[in-house]
Amino acid sequence: MAQVVKNPAVRQLVPERHGCITDVPGLRLGHVTRVGRGWRTGTTVVLLPPGTIGGVDVRGGGPGTRETDLLHPTAMMNEVHAICLTGGSAFGLAAAGGVMAYLEERGVGFRVGPAENEVVPIVPAAVIFDLGRGGRFAGRPDEATGRRAAAAAHSTASANGAFGAGTGARSRGLQGGVGTASVTLAAASGAGVVVSALAVVNSSGSAIDEATGLPWVAGDIRLRGPSGADRSRLRAHLDTATPTLNTTIGLIATTAALTKAECSRMSTVAHDGLARAIRPVHLMFDGDTIFGIATGRDDLGLAAATPSEEPAQRARNSRLNLILAAAADCFAVACSNAITFAESNGGAPSYRDLCPSAFPSRGV
Amino acid sequence: MAQVVKNPAVRQLVPERHGCITDVPGLRLGHVTRVGRGWRTGTTVVLLPPGTIGGVDVRGGGPGTRETDLLHPTAMMNEVHAICLTGGSAFGLAAAGGVMAYLEERGVGFRVGPAENEVVPIVPAAVIFDLGRGGRFAGRPDEATGRRAAAAAHSTASANGAFGAGTGARSRGLQGGVGTASVTLAAASGAGVVVSALAVVNSSGSAIDEATGLPWVAGDIRLRGPSGADRSRLRAHLDTATPTLNTTIGLIATTAALTKAECSRMSTVAHDGLARAIRPVHLMFDGDTIFGIATGRDDLGLAAATPSEEPAQRARNSRLNLILAAAADCFAVACSNAITFAESNGGAPSYRDLCPSAFPSRGV
Repeated sequence: MAQVVKNPAVRQLVPERHGCITDVPGLRLGHVTRVGRGWRTGTTVVLLPPGTIGGVDVRGGGPGTRETDLLHPTAMMNEVHAICLTGGSAFGLAAAGGVMAYLEERGVGFRVGPAENEVVPIVPAAVIFDLGRGGRFAGRPDEATGRRAAAAAHSTASANGAFGAGTGARSRGLQGGVGTASVTLAAASGAGVVVSALAVVNSSGSAIDEATGLPWVAGDIRLRGPSGADRSRLRAHLDTATPTLNTTIGLIATTAALTKAECSRMSTVAHDGLARAIRPVHLMFDGDTIFGIATGRDDLGLAAATPSEEPAQRARNSRLNLILAAAADCFAVACSNAITFAESNGGAPSYRDLCPSAFPSRGV
Repeated sequence: MAQVVKNPAVRQLVPERHGCITDVPGLRLGHVTRVGRGWRTGTTVVLLPPGTIGGVDVRGGGPGTRETDLLHPTAMMNEVHAICLTGGSAFGLAAAGGVMAYLEERGVGFRVGPAENEVVPIVPAAVIFDLGRGGRFAGRPDEATGRRAAAAAHSTASANGAFGAGTGARSRGLQGGVGTASVTLAAASGAGVVVSALAVVNSSGSAIDEATGLPWVAGDIRLRGPSGADRSRLRAHLDTATPTLNTTIGLIATTAALTKAECSRMSTVAHDGLARAIRPVHLMFDGDTIFGIATGRDDLGLAAATPSEEPAQRARNSRLNLILAAAADCFAVACSNAITFAESNGGAPSYRDLCPSAFPSRGV
């Protein structure tokens, strides 16, 4: 469940269990994980409830994307039906087609004809580079993978670990993965609005502060300062990691009724969370892309200002500001969780492997 | 062959045969056309020579696109390997995957590993809405269609008519299609630079001026004022055409060595040609997208200015201006050709069908 932040002035979330992307009601999360026989990759899909509005901010220098132009605030399409995050570099964009096919069969999409299935599902997608990490360059998600991830989606899927789109991910030579977080704003500050994040961390920059051996941003595992031996081993590993093509992609979600432009704004601010959690980021080989979606459950008041409504518009923007700040915090925590929860699937050592002394002795 | 414009001050191209997108050496054009058994759609692919730089401008309100973010001037990727234009609405984006597969097998792409085929082909794509126009909603281009279009590509393919991505296209109730044009700038003004265009016209706006019964922009067929009867029939048809989802997509190409940002600028100005040729355009249901690519054969001089190089930079921009103006003209002529060359494939009547008196008596 989402953590309730009682004092909205406290921007930095405390390092306790926060929750999951699916704490925004109606979201369903599905993963496909392929490891072995030349594969080390996967796909993560988030199916969205009817009426969900979407935006995006692409801030990396090497993006691989699909259906992002229609998310521009001036474009016509408002509703988004799913978000597809996947391995496979640009080849993996095919997975979004499988998600489309799954939704089309269920009559979910932008209606373009009278028959039940005459719809065009809107499935924006972004990819990470993980080609060849399982041994076979051609072992990568395709249309069938996307369809299976959509079929697997449910409201209680796991979201912290090295699976789905995070299966083949690496973060400065450590095992990368998928991470999540959520927060519920206190009623006074945001009408119980939920903000949640999902991140797939595949970064050339590091999520770990070499000076302390701990993540730059505290996540859901209560870590302690690691031993000197662990710190040295970790530092040696991080220093020798070869930078390659990388990308952190993800999704920030809220129950608030945002406009399309506000969804893009939320994506923009979520990139600030990424900036805190992974250093450096947004470089030329990073395809960093964050989608922002709003399910519209919680009204924030007046959405379009006129001069006489200025105070109401100011009040709306104040509420929106809390959501934006929470978006950055949640995305940062999601990135941290992606690294601290990940267990190696054989490709690269995990943070846990190199720094066991940071972890509590009995699991998490 | 491309027409040589002798006086660069003459911006409006004269209505004579101009040439083809493939007048930019190295470009290869391929189409797949599917009509019958529920299909009326297709795919058009342009394969690009090594070192081709790309940009894009998406100006419609309802775009369906893939791999456009990496074309942003600040993004890392410079080289583009093919452009995929296709029917099938967002479902048709799968065709780009087939083009990628074709290129990957030939080792063409952005190199990410040491083995010959460890490449990621960069294949930006845009779609038109033509779903169900052949009778079957599911009769639309897929990965195999894209692969076949790539395999069919050659330097002398036809480019004016109702085939390829233009198969199921309509323009204000008339048969739409693919159109092309090219121009070679006179040596004094642009070092023999070739500018060429390919347009897939599927517009809710009209390419025809109802007052005259002739296209807004003169194309490669020397038309004459149609008879009163033809004009009335044409006007009645255009007035009753039901607007639906529409999109004009295309490509503007040049032999000049442009920067990536200049390629996007060329796309932007090409949209002005679209604005002249089809009225109205760029509305909320139009996904109008134009890619801009530069093969780099012809040096324009200094690409980055310093204060002391200001005169050289001015000279470069003057040459660039001629290319930009030609881009708008070529794209306008390509749109006009798409409508006047198209013959009906059974879905909607063509301009030729409704206005035969405008055409010369013995072919074109």
